[in-house]
Amino acid sequence: MHTDKNAPAKLTGKIQFGLVLKHRRESLRLSQEAVAEKAGLHRTYISQVERGVRNLSIDSMERLAEAVGMEVWEMLRP
Amino acid sequence: MHTDKNAPAKLTGKIQFGLVLKHRRESLRLSQEAVAEKAGLHRTYISQVERGVRNLSIDSMERLAEAVGMEVWEMLRP
Repeated sequence: MHTDKNAPAKLTGKIQFGLVLKHRRESLRLSQEAVAEKAGLHRTYISQVERGVRNLSIDSMERLAEAVGMEVWEMLRP
Repeated sequence: MHTDKNAPAKLTGKIQFGLVLKHRRESLRLSQEAVAEKAGLHRTYISQVERGVRNLSIDSMERLAEAVGMEVWEMLRP
């Protein structure tokens, strides 16, 4: 267990994945609609993922990672 | 798209996660029951994950990774 009180709290996977997705999508100047289209998912789903409120599956993570040209493991790496 | 016919096929996330989980669990000499207990999941679920037939969620991946002392991103890294 992590006991260093000065260390930042570890992000949960879905929060981190959402933050990285949003950052990457914006760097690529893609809209949520564009990523949704590429990944075959709905725009509201992308919005929920980016806000960290979706307990998304590994398959969906792979589709989203591919849509923004990344690998899932890179998106989850601290 | 990947066109190098001599390169090994890339594993899907759920296949790789399952293989790594099984390998790590066996290295730790833990039974599927023991991992299930630690992760708060059912043994049959662990069996499905290890066989790569479960499209598991990020939350479940984190519980399983923690049960075997790893990080999800490490388990998905090629």
